[in-house]
Amino acid sequence: MHILEVDTHDREELLDITPAVRRMLRENAWTDGALLLYCPHTTGAVTVNEGADPDVVRDILVNMDKLVPRNGDYRHAEGNSDAHIKSSLFGCDQLVIVEDGDIRLGTWQKIYFCEFDGPRSRKLWVQWLGV
Amino acid sequence: MHILEVDTHDREELLDITPAVRRMLRENAWTDGALLLYCPHTTGAVTVNEGADPDVVRDILVNMDKLVPRNGDYRHAEGNSDAHIKSSLFGCDQLVIVEDGDIRLGTWQKIYFCEFDGPRSRKLWVQWLGV
Amino acid sequence: MHILEVDTHDREELLDITPAVRRMLRENAWTDGALLLYCPHTTGAVTVNEGADPDVVRDILVNMDKLVPRNGDYRHAEGNSDAHIKSSLFGCDQLVIVEDGDIRLGTWQKIYFCEFDGPRSRKLWVQWLGV
Repeated sequence: MHILEVDTHDREELLDITPAVRRMLRENAWTDGALLLYCPHTTGAVTVNEGADPDVVRDILVNMDKLVPRNGDYRHAEGNSDAHIKSSLFGCDQLVIVEDGDIRLGTWQKIYFCEFDGPRSRKLWVQWLGV
Repeated sequence: MHILEVDTHDREELLDITPAVRRMLRENAWTDGALLLYCPHTTGAVTVNEGADPDVVRDILVNMDKLVPRNGDYRHAEGNSDAHIKSSLFGCDQLVIVEDGDIRLGTWQKIYFCEFDGPRSRKLWVQWLGV
Repeated sequence: MHILEVDTHDREELLDITPAVRRMLRENAWTDGALLLYCPHTTGAVTVNEGADPDVVRDILVNMDKLVPRNGDYRHAEGNSDAHIKSSLFGCDQLVIVEDGDIRLGTWQKIYFCEFDGPRSRKLWVQWLGV
């Protein structure tokens, strides 16, 4: 297992980690298979979505806040139940395909670390799954 | 990596791709492991759900539209921010177990390509992960 | 493929299956790779979330019910369309990393079988993906 250090800057953020994942790939002899990106934090997640227009990320975050508001019928005393719910909705695991030593992503896709209760210093766990 | 061509017919659709995935499996020497089904489009997804009663798919699509309406507080100019949000909620990656050369699905399960901004010609990427 | 028997106790429940998954791991010679946890039921799911404060699970279930209510614009006659929707939102597949023969989870993470239409006797399918 490899570890990627991720520093987030806001309470809620989709941070593009594509360059860091690509760098890790180049530093290892991984050629064909898949990379498992795993968020070990219960108020974070990993997702893949559009990276060309920053408004897409803005629209995702703003509207996820409408769906799962910060304040509501919550009993968990830390005030971050919304972040836990979003973590399960987006999922803590994400697979990306690796071919000929590079990540294969769709034309507009970027890999995002999802911060729902930051800013914090986070870790992303990376497990190689070869063919 | 293998590619499955998928033509969708509506703006929103859950298209049963189980027969096509099964066909791809038979054409390859994959016996035991898992298939990674990966949608390279940021307004699509892949999921597994009920395939016996078409009303289940109808209920999923209609109610996802209530949750994430097409028109709302969106800045992304293409008018498909709802589709991007649904893509991350359903997830662009889906794993299915392969055993003795066949996909193992639950009794009522079918594999669906999720179209949230169609109709379009789409691709589904398929990566074999052997044991 | 291995099978874990899971008995749920309520209509909606997040059942901690971490000890059972760990036991299965110890009974097999799996050392480094990932475990694919797969729910073959279309009204269930698998997720990873906080396991220290039971209020987190309570907050997740109560607020998912607000998002996707049991009664609504549904046509599927079995009265469990909400459970099907939640199944696709949480996802029927979950990967966890295995290193040195043990599951690697974040400090507060537990693995949950998600029951959305119980109580029932359920199965969880487990597929080893070695490196």
